[in-house]
Amino acid sequence: MTTFDEPPVFPRGFTCASRNVGLKPKAKDLSLFVSDIDCAAAAVFTRNQFPGAPIILGRETIKGGVLRAVIVNSKVSNVATGATGIVRARRMAAAAAREVGTDAGKVLVSSTGVIGVSLPIEKIENGIVGMASELQADPMVGALGIMTTDTRPKALSTKVGAATITWIAKGAGMIEPNMATMLAYVFTDAALDASTLDAMLRRAVDVSLNMLSVDGDMSTSDTCAILANGLAGPVDADAFETALTAGTIRMAEIIARDGEGANHLIKVVVRGAAKREDARSVAKAVVNSPLVKTMVAGADPNVGRLLMAIGKCLSAAIDPAKTDVWINGHQVVAGGARGDFEDGLVRTALADDVVTIEIALGLGDANATAFGCDLTQGYIDENAAYYSS
Amino acid sequence: MTTFDEPPVFPRGFTCASRNVGLKPKAKDLSLFVSDIDCAAAAVFTRNQFPGAPIILGRETIKGGVLRAVIVNSKVSNVATGATGIVRARRMAAAAAREVGTDAGKVLVSSTGVIGVSLPIEKIENGIVGMASELQADPMVGALGIMTTDTRPKALSTKVGAATITWIAKGAGMIEPNMATMLAYVFTDAALDASTLDAMLRRAVDVSLNMLSVDGDMSTSDTCAILANGLAGPVDADAFETALTAGTIRMAEIIARDGEGANHLIKVVVRGAAKREDARSVAKAVVNSPLVKTMVAGADPNVGRLLMAIGKCLSAAIDPAKTDVWINGHQVVAGGARGDFEDGLVRTALADDVVTIEIALGLGDANATAFGCDLTQGYIDENAAYYSS
Repeated sequence: MTTFDEPPVFPRGFTCASRNVGLKPKAKDLSLFVSDIDCAAAAVFTRNQFPGAPIILGRETIKGGVLRAVIVNSKVSNVATGATGIVRARRMAAAAAREVGTDAGKVLVSSTGVIGVSLPIEKIENGIVGMASELQADPMVGALGIMTTDTRPKALSTKVGAATITWIAKGAGMIEPNMATMLAYVFTDAALDASTLDAMLRRAVDVSLNMLSVDGDMSTSDTCAILANGLAGPVDADAFETALTAGTIRMAEIIARDGEGANHLIKVVVRGAAKREDARSVAKAVVNSPLVKTMVAGADPNVGRLLMAIGKCLSAAIDPAKTDVWINGHQVVAGGARGDFEDGLVRTALADDVVTIEIALGLGDANATAFGCDLTQGYIDENAAYYSS
Repeated sequence: MTTFDEPPVFPRGFTCASRNVGLKPKAKDLSLFVSDIDCAAAAVFTRNQFPGAPIILGRETIKGGVLRAVIVNSKVSNVATGATGIVRARRMAAAAAREVGTDAGKVLVSSTGVIGVSLPIEKIENGIVGMASELQADPMVGALGIMTTDTRPKALSTKVGAATITWIAKGAGMIEPNMATMLAYVFTDAALDASTLDAMLRRAVDVSLNMLSVDGDMSTSDTCAILANGLAGPVDADAFETALTAGTIRMAEIIARDGEGANHLIKVVVRGAAKREDARSVAKAVVNSPLVKTMVAGADPNVGRLLMAIGKCLSAAIDPAKTDVWINGHQVVAGGARGDFEDGLVRTALADDVVTIEIALGLGDANATAFGCDLTQGYIDENAAYYSS
């Protein structure tokens, strides 16, 4: 069982700062994360075919396997900005490198916010000057500067032997399974090489951020990176990966719970699938279904919607007669038909902050869990009014 | 150009009746459609893996290729009701057959409404008695009895030579591409055999109802059937198929426009795709994207969301530099980047009743059109409050 620090702390040698540099009217819009020494690093990026300029640059940067700093702005995502966008992403890396005293090739750049708007690079270049003098050890400071429609900053940390792992993320909308689905940075003082980090990060993301969906829309900017500066020395690799996975899953839950307009975290646990891909596709289909999401918002045990959502996975092996479903422990489907349950009890269960929908397919040993949230008027409010300019 | 009758009429030999038999408090909840003589017939059904009892029975019935009547109830869908559900669907066919004076094997049964609730078959068996004496030639009468959350009854008719084709449908929610996606019945007095009808129906549905999406959820009950009684004699097959396709596309548009909570019909036209599957998947991804749907609801030209939705089609060939997009004729994306357009003009265009998003991929000759609607608070209201019991 992984336990998390309260409040979250940084590993040795990591600090951060955040500022308002004029992209937003008042709120923090630029965060800088720095390690005292070079880090072994790995990253995964969105698979969207219209990646933002920072993603194109980031793929190039991470090939080196070494990072010293991460610079992130919110408000403008630098996506759909053509060749100029790439030039501005490079200028952003160079500005951070100058401030920190390193090479631009060791700075990972992320931008999040509105798409199709030119990045105000001068504001960032001017605004970053002096940030190195404000670097501090509180991860919440950096988490604040990367928020868009998040309602709260997101940071976690835990210990593995002498080492610490710290997660900082932002989420909220345009979050889809299939790839990293938001901005998440993992910092550790454990000593691990870049290729080990890469393999561990991919496995951890596959069962956490890749199983997270707020709205089925896949962002053009999503990034998950890990930086290890080694100041705590070697760690037990298995223990490290267990903690890395647990914390990344926990962060996926935190992001889902804070999905735009969300009032509930929905966890869909599928077991007994014939194969892993079936378990994953059923879990994602149910967590993504607008009718299931509104069912949770309305606290109504409409079990037919659950069967509909399972049944729309045309590629998955499903035998209605073997399908059972539980909502927070109450069996609502038995053998593919409505179970014998007390409506009022399930209504009460659906009002819980966390709604776990457990689906047993009865066909094999494969399992998967997906993370999502309910669909409310708050989502419509935010997105019908989230103006592009 | 296919023109439609105002008001819609039935072909020779077809009549219908609808009643309240006590499934709903007051509104019509049972519709009976009858031909004076046996019809050649074909049908397509939902591909959902939890099909309702009427779908299981309907697949068996349609094998005969002959129908005399269609009986449809609203309010209760007879889905997830196990073996009892099948027995009740058969009793519903038998009750209609007795009333009409035919075999149960020549009656197509449909049920639409809440899932997981027992069909009150006695109410239907008792309520249907005497309906044959109320049969009349106004298709709107039958369209009324099959409504669930539709805001208006849906019927169309047109002429092909001496023959008439009439469409009657219901839609509103749980409407997804991949299959027939609602209840739609096509009646004609043209003389065509069952296998010809089957082939024509599948082709027509493929470019209309299979390209229609309200919420990405695929119903367990969807059915599209065609009945041809031949009373008008032979028709030109090509002219018939052209009209059949045009009317089924028009009905798809009507259903999309009346999607739950919708204020706009969204048509996504993709051209220049490398292959047909690419064009179809991009069109569906864009029409289904919650962020595109809320963009239309908010009348905001957020072009980045369009690129995001195109880019999330991982299987489609896409070259950002060749991608152009127009909203109701205004170019908003040129070569993968935001076009040089006047914001106010596009905002005004987005307020139109019909919003056409045209996407040119610049890679080949394949085209596709998808039909959907905007996502509003009305959808949340209806579905968070659409109680299962």
